[in-house]
Amino acid sequence: MKKVLLATSALVMFAGAASAEIALSGSAVMGVGDDGGVDGVRSIMETYLTFSASGETDAGLAFGFDTTIGVYDTDGGLNDDGTSVYISGAFGKLSMGSVAEADEVATLSDIGLVGLGIDNVAESYSGDSAGRESHDVNYTYSAGALMLALSAHIGAGGEGDGYAVGVKYSFGDAYVGLGYNDDNVSLAAGTVTSVYAGGSFGAFGVSAMWSEWNPDAAGANQDAYGVYMTYAVDALTLSAAVADGSAEADASYGIGAAYDLGGGAEVKGGVGDVRGETVWDMGLSFSF
Amino acid sequence: MKKVLLATSALVMFAGAASAEIALSGSAVMGVGDDGGVDGVRSIMETYLTFSASGETDAGLAFGFDTTIGVYDTDGGLNDDGTSVYISGAFGKLSMGSVAEADEVATLSDIGLVGLGIDNVAESYSGDSAGRESHDVNYTYSAGALMLALSAHIGAGGEGDGYAVGVKYSFGDAYVGLGYNDDNVSLAAGTVTSVYAGGSFGAFGVSAMWSEWNPDAAGANQDAYGVYMTYAVDALTLSAAVADGSAEADASYGIGAAYDLGGGAEVKGGVGDVRGETVWDMGLSFSF
Amino acid sequence: MKKVLLATSALVMFAGAASAEIALSGSAVMGVGDDGGVDGVRSIMETYLTFSASGETDAGLAFGFDTTIGVYDTDGGLNDDGTSVYISGAFGKLSMGSVAEADEVATLSDIGLVGLGIDNVAESYSGDSAGRESHDVNYTYSAGALMLALSAHIGAGGEGDGYAVGVKYSFGDAYVGLGYNDDNVSLAAGTVTSVYAGGSFGAFGVSAMWSEWNPDAAGANQDAYGVYMTYAVDALTLSAAVADGSAEADASYGIGAAYDLGGGAEVKGGVGDVRGETVWDMGLSFSF
Repeated sequence: MKKVLLATSALVMFAGAASAEIALSGSAVMGVGDDGGVDGVRSIMETYLTFSASGETDAGLAFGFDTTIGVYDTDGGLNDDGTSVYISGAFGKLSMGSVAEADEVATLSDIGLVGLGIDNVAESYSGDSAGRESHDVNYTYSAGALMLALSAHIGAGGEGDGYAVGVKYSFGDAYVGLGYNDDNVSLAAGTVTSVYAGGSFGAFGVSAMWSEWNPDAAGANQDAYGVYMTYAVDALTLSAAVADGSAEADASYGIGAAYDLGGGAEVKGGVGDVRGETVWDMGLSFSF
Repeated sequence: MKKVLLATSALVMFAGAASAEIALSGSAVMGVGDDGGVDGVRSIMETYLTFSASGETDAGLAFGFDTTIGVYDTDGGLNDDGTSVYISGAFGKLSMGSVAEADEVATLSDIGLVGLGIDNVAESYSGDSAGRESHDVNYTYSAGALMLALSAHIGAGGEGDGYAVGVKYSFGDAYVGLGYNDDNVSLAAGTVTSVYAGGSFGAFGVSAMWSEWNPDAAGANQDAYGVYMTYAVDALTLSAAVADGSAEADASYGIGAAYDLGGGAEVKGGVGDVRGETVWDMGLSFSF
Repeated sequence: MKKVLLATSALVMFAGAASAEIALSGSAVMGVGDDGGVDGVRSIMETYLTFSASGETDAGLAFGFDTTIGVYDTDGGLNDDGTSVYISGAFGKLSMGSVAEADEVATLSDIGLVGLGIDNVAESYSGDSAGRESHDVNYTYSAGALMLALSAHIGAGGEGDGYAVGVKYSFGDAYVGLGYNDDNVSLAAGTVTSVYAGGSFGAFGVSAMWSEWNPDAAGANQDAYGVYMTYAVDALTLSAAVADGSAEADASYGIGAAYDLGGGAEVKGGVGDVRGETVWDMGLSFSF
């Protein structure tokens, strides 16, 4: 007695019958890898179920929430992999919960099946990295090619009132962006300025970022940066990334490949050197 | 590849095709508030997904279960916000799990977006308050205007065998109720007698309750009571509540408002004085 | 505004419209029982929601994942009751996550509503019992009446690299099986050999198993074994089980009954003597 949820494409016949709905989507990976830790080769299994509730007010404002249930390995439990509530309209989109920090205008993708962590090197200072409190409210406004974002952590005593702003400008298939994050509480207190650029050029894609942290405490500024590139040939997509920073002993880098099997399945993997450790992973990635 | 769940209204065409089904509904809030704690203003985000499984035996008994997955803020995980299993028929309805205590015949609504807690003052002694063990089985029987309920905590060694009974009588749009709770184990051991009354009168609604706790230990009886009122004008609903008790230093009170935006969305908020603290919250409430 | 998921039977009209989908099914029990512990009679309530995502590659390989959210009682939270990801085709089926150990070719069913634990006595040494690390990858291949399975725990430092193999041969409605498990790390380190046999013979069903553990450490081999039998008459199914082993003071045994109410509902219960304790449970079992 299984209940089957219909695919969206089958739903046109019901158009107009329901203004509010809850949609379900998912993804999963299975494979093996080595993250450079003492445990050596490990198995990889992750699953994600995303519930997307949406509705519309009489005045035409869209609202809803998204929550993702994640299972990260065999032994773990169920995890909240991100939950946020939003309302949007001509005024922009206001979100609360697990929102993006506004200075993360265009984060880098990672190499591999579940990721080698090269992007983390480049993003050492932006967003909620470096132990900084995650923001819980985000406002985004788009006008043509321009996108403006504001985010903050609201209240709560000792946690302070950090905020961030971001601007992104798109031209054709390319973009540039600028982000600023001000945090006066965490161990990483100070300001962070980030610059982003990237785009798609035929079979090639590239995204790059550079961030500088200006700490409140005594000491020199720190920076971090990275580039992620892809090249697609038919069902195959090759990728490469490199990231480094003033606090890194060595640059981190890696290459990856993904082969599209159709129907939402991919063979995917990557290998690299991240903070001095050789890391790799490979396996299957599914989306539903 | 999102899967979309159909709204109930689209389902008439399948009537009879399925005797067992699992329905999905949800709600969410986003806003800000101050609960009087040391942290000052805080952000509010809560989401709820409710799965309702239902079926019918060959003899026409209805059965099923309901479970709600709640996410209460940004940092928390996934929570079991209430799960119970039931079977019902001409004999009444038997539920197990997160059930209501039978003496809570008609609990008060709270003021505000996620609630200021005024209702908790009035409900200081009834139900599972005062550290009393929650009941895990409930039987409810309705005969015309009369509703009878029994509930208990079954077994489990040192936790004792508390039970409760409740009676509710409805006439027109009004009701009166009586509840009794006997608990011989917790710090709140003793008996609790509760009286309820309320109803809807045109645009007005009111619900009131009074409870008295007669402790097993030496010491005087304690009581608590409260009133909740609403007044609806078109899309706007105003609310007010007051609650007090023999153990309270001051009465708690508050006023609230909700404005229906259509499609399941409301603007909602409240402000009040609860146990000597000024508290408020406001924001958006969505149902799906 | 409830969303209703359609039963599979209503879906034929959409055949071909969607290659990927996420199906939802569930089950629940409610009742009472005594597991022989100090707490005496306890209430029983368990609910399960299973999400089954499935898709197909262009080359016709089936893939997907299954995750079950379990709630085991009133006070507990949400639990990952088993999550695994798979891909299958002519080459067999490869699963990762919460997979079966390959030497558990045909585990015994248990007696009762949620189970008295008689099967656990017979399965004292096979699979992931005796504190052995659960396997996280399983490969199964079927060729006609023959089924071959391999499983292992991949990597992870001190946890070792246990593996297991299993073979099952079916003839008509009967089967025989053989399992082997090699574990060199846990307190139960050593090898386990298991033999299985069973089948359905008209109204009768029987399954039996015997396992022997050959420990790496000094000391004698240990064995455990059990038989589970059923007899069905119309809507009623009677069951009986007995299990014992070289490390058991007494044999464990029990009898049970299930009566099908139709629509996915059953009245179900059992009573027995397990490791010297009288245990029983009874109640309702629902599937959706």
